[in-house]
Amino acid sequence: MLKPKKPIQSEVTMTEMVLPNDTNTLNNLMGGRLLHWMDICAAIAAQKHSNRIVVTASVDNVSFAEPIRLGNIVTMHAKVTRAFNSSMEVHLKVWAEDIPAGQRVSTNSAFYTFVAVDQNGRPIEVPVLEPETEEEHELFESAMRRRQLRLVLAGRMKPSEAVELKALFQA
Amino acid sequence: MLKPKKPIQSEVTMTEMVLPNDTNTLNNLMGGRLLHWMDICAAIAAQKHSNRIVVTASVDNVSFAEPIRLGNIVTMHAKVTRAFNSSMEVHLKVWAEDIPAGQRVSTNSAFYTFVAVDQNGRPIEVPVLEPETEEEHELFESAMRRRQLRLVLAGRMKPSEAVELKALFQA
Amino acid sequence: MLKPKKPIQSEVTMTEMVLPNDTNTLNNLMGGRLLHWMDICAAIAAQKHSNRIVVTASVDNVSFAEPIRLGNIVTMHAKVTRAFNSSMEVHLKVWAEDIPAGQRVSTNSAFYTFVAVDQNGRPIEVPVLEPETEEEHELFESAMRRRQLRLVLAGRMKPSEAVELKALFQA
Amino acid sequence: MLKPKKPIQSEVTMTEMVLPNDTNTLNNLMGGRLLHWMDICAAIAAQKHSNRIVVTASVDNVSFAEPIRLGNIVTMHAKVTRAFNSSMEVHLKVWAEDIPAGQRVSTNSAFYTFVAVDQNGRPIEVPVLEPETEEEHELFESAMRRRQLRLVLAGRMKPSEAVELKALFQA
Amino acid sequence: MLKPKKPIQSEVTMTEMVLPNDTNTLNNLMGGRLLHWMDICAAIAAQKHSNRIVVTASVDNVSFAEPIRLGNIVTMHAKVTRAFNSSMEVHLKVWAEDIPAGQRVSTNSAFYTFVAVDQNGRPIEVPVLEPETEEEHELFESAMRRRQLRLVLAGRMKPSEAVELKALFQA
Amino acid sequence: MLKPKKPIQSEVTMTEMVLPNDTNTLNNLMGGRLLHWMDICAAIAAQKHSNRIVVTASVDNVSFAEPIRLGNIVTMHAKVTRAFNSSMEVHLKVWAEDIPAGQRVSTNSAFYTFVAVDQNGRPIEVPVLEPETEEEHELFESAMRRRQLRLVLAGRMKPSEAVELKALFQA
Repeated sequence: MLKPKKPIQSEVTMTEMVLPNDTNTLNNLMGGRLLHWMDICAAIAAQKHSNRIVVTASVDNVSFAEPIRLGNIVTMHAKVTRAFNSSMEVHLKVWAEDIPAGQRVSTNSAFYTFVAVDQNGRPIEVPVLEPETEEEHELFESAMRRRQLRLVLAGRMKPSEAVELKALFQA
Repeated sequence: MLKPKKPIQSEVTMTEMVLPNDTNTLNNLMGGRLLHWMDICAAIAAQKHSNRIVVTASVDNVSFAEPIRLGNIVTMHAKVTRAFNSSMEVHLKVWAEDIPAGQRVSTNSAFYTFVAVDQNGRPIEVPVLEPETEEEHELFESAMRRRQLRLVLAGRMKPSEAVELKALFQA
Repeated sequence: MLKPKKPIQSEVTMTEMVLPNDTNTLNNLMGGRLLHWMDICAAIAAQKHSNRIVVTASVDNVSFAEPIRLGNIVTMHAKVTRAFNSSMEVHLKVWAEDIPAGQRVSTNSAFYTFVAVDQNGRPIEVPVLEPETEEEHELFESAMRRRQLRLVLAGRMKPSEAVELKALFQA
Repeated sequence: MLKPKKPIQSEVTMTEMVLPNDTNTLNNLMGGRLLHWMDICAAIAAQKHSNRIVVTASVDNVSFAEPIRLGNIVTMHAKVTRAFNSSMEVHLKVWAEDIPAGQRVSTNSAFYTFVAVDQNGRPIEVPVLEPETEEEHELFESAMRRRQLRLVLAGRMKPSEAVELKALFQA
Repeated sequence: MLKPKKPIQSEVTMTEMVLPNDTNTLNNLMGGRLLHWMDICAAIAAQKHSNRIVVTASVDNVSFAEPIRLGNIVTMHAKVTRAFNSSMEVHLKVWAEDIPAGQRVSTNSAFYTFVAVDQNGRPIEVPVLEPETEEEHELFESAMRRRQLRLVLAGRMKPSEAVELKALFQA
Repeated sequence: MLKPKKPIQSEVTMTEMVLPNDTNTLNNLMGGRLLHWMDICAAIAAQKHSNRIVVTASVDNVSFAEPIRLGNIVTMHAKVTRAFNSSMEVHLKVWAEDIPAGQRVSTNSAFYTFVAVDQNGRPIEVPVLEPETEEEHELFESAMRRRQLRLVLAGRMKPSEAVELKALFQA
């Protein structure tokens, strides 16, 4: 069996400067470009946890509350929250900074999942994750509920079987 | 009041060829690049419905079941499914084709939401959508449930208040 | 012999949003960028007709009458007009839309030719094309004249031998 | 009246290295990418002749005889051949080099036309061109014939009125 | 006078995945692409120190000892080492990781200098830097010698006047 | 032994138009982008001298005195100045032109060094360089001093052993 790993071992920080081609006609970062950067950042975290090539399996609901402006600096932090056989859930937090204005706001958070694969693209086992901090424990626990939601949304689990998720709506 | 519009009036087809920089080390299209293309395609559909500049408000859970290969042709179809005041939900279907091999597979579907804004970036009213086909009616109806799920996931609605969504888990 | 194909079987729609890097200092789409997009769109049509890898053999005279602006949506439609052994002529129509302004103009049309090749890059036979609509029949007929013009311009046919083309100037 | 200029005053050399994203699945440079580079190179020549912002008016028939490979060096030379009021014809010659193999081949030549415009995009007069070398004189003379062909192909001149062009087919 | 700042306040981490277009025909990262990434990373550090728009003033000698491969993850750390009126020296360290192979090597270090400018591009004062750690103190001290070398190399100081630098060669 | 070569045999001219994504928020070309272009231009010169694949070994101190604006044309000239076994030093001169304004300024000069390698990436011998013009002789002579500076800065030579360099500071 593979040696378990800590969340801190997969931690990644990625920084991007918003350039003209990343923006819409209002000079705001396009949502799709951010999703692209987040995918690369999260993939690196999943690579670090598994020491494998990884492929994106899904992205959970992401909402874009704050506009991010041309010239802003976007910082992303990614960390694996839980591993399931060959798949890993990665949590990302995103900040945008207008440095000359001295403003830094939290703009997004997201969950991506990846599958570790061998050179032929076949799924392969990854280490289990052992959370350390309180936040890591919470993300580890809630990962099961998010996984059920993904399976329900992908039509691969009946809502009635999503026990953890159901509990949420019956409270 | 704005004149209602049909889904067909917002229909968009976008086609992309998978080039080397779009791929990972297995020569498969990276998930984030596809999310980026889908965002642009869906934004054009929302623009067509509203005749406004639009900004991405959210993307719902997207899963990536099929690998898409270097050299494949990716075709995306987008159509608005429902409008709520200043926001619009857009449904996308994605196919990948290996033309020399004569293979075409359905690889993804997704829901993006956009907000129509004026030149100062403030939300502005959009026409209501009037579905026509059976599929359009189904997407129109289920849009309310997806909207509740988005609000719950964004922490802006309590699960207990998400009436339509709750029904799903109590069946 | 390969089964003949209809023009509709090679039909492709491609959509692009004009981004800052696509424009000159007047914020208009650069002609070369459009020629690049048209080449990709036409190549996909030729791939669909031949189910082969294709390489660009030539582009006919293209004129750029209408400026296309930053933020406009460019839509291209491509269809094979005629096949000659291993080569195919593809016709493209291009529109530009300023969606917030509700304006859509026809901006260009063009003819590209492609050669179908095998994995070693050697020319290989393609199906003949059987036009259906009146417009398709006209394009099929006039394809011979355009082919003669290409050969004359490439110095591979004497003007005096370009029978169909000559007729045009002697009317 | 503007001071006439020599072809040498508009001469431009542009060099590009063929990178992975410029190539098709056979690792050959895509035709559309080359057309894009040629447009930029020719536009700089037209800028140098007119000292104005220029917009692409047309590209004449271009054929792609030689495949250009990944890693090759593409060299383009552009020079204005003739000016007509606000428009200029530019001639390009293209070479591809596989430097480690010690091979350099002439791959293309092309004619682009540009219109000089003021800051509002309105056409504005350019200097006349005074050819010097024998080749420049030939290109200057034949420019009238190519111009007639462009007008005929764009439907703005009847074949019967294209006097210089007609002569070619009646020989 | 502006409040002095610590090196830690300008610290930036940037992560990039080496994609096909970043590589040469040996599948190694091209030096120029790395210099481009390093410039952006260092510029963000200088922005953070000065809370101003910054422009690159110079890059010191950079050597590329280790090849960095396609698919590798490049991590850059940047921190301001010293401020002089309106200019700042930034130190970068670069690592490349082949995550599936479990290898991480230090590949480069570099010094970039930036000038802080106002909205009209005129130089403007920046806070002085107060080093904290031993390494920061060493970089702060040696910054004067590097500055003299830059001035000598730019022909703006005579070698004989570069007191600190001279000492080095007379030892 | 390989046949010696002249500097003129490696001469390369590269021209780039400054596009929006190449610029910072002041609409000036970013230093890193210019370093990237210079690396490609210099690499082609080194390829031409050696007829080999080349990898960047180092770039010497580059300073950026003049801002280069959006829409400017950047012209680079590169030539090999001296060869040492498997390595070559390349000198670049850079100009920026605002053509409509009729302004052309010399903005940079730089020295890059490259190593010629075989298909396995191992260093391989290159021809010696025989300078012809006076400027070429000067660059050839001073190349030894720059080489010593590179070795000292890379910690591979003691300042006291850099005989030619030392002389400079003892004058």
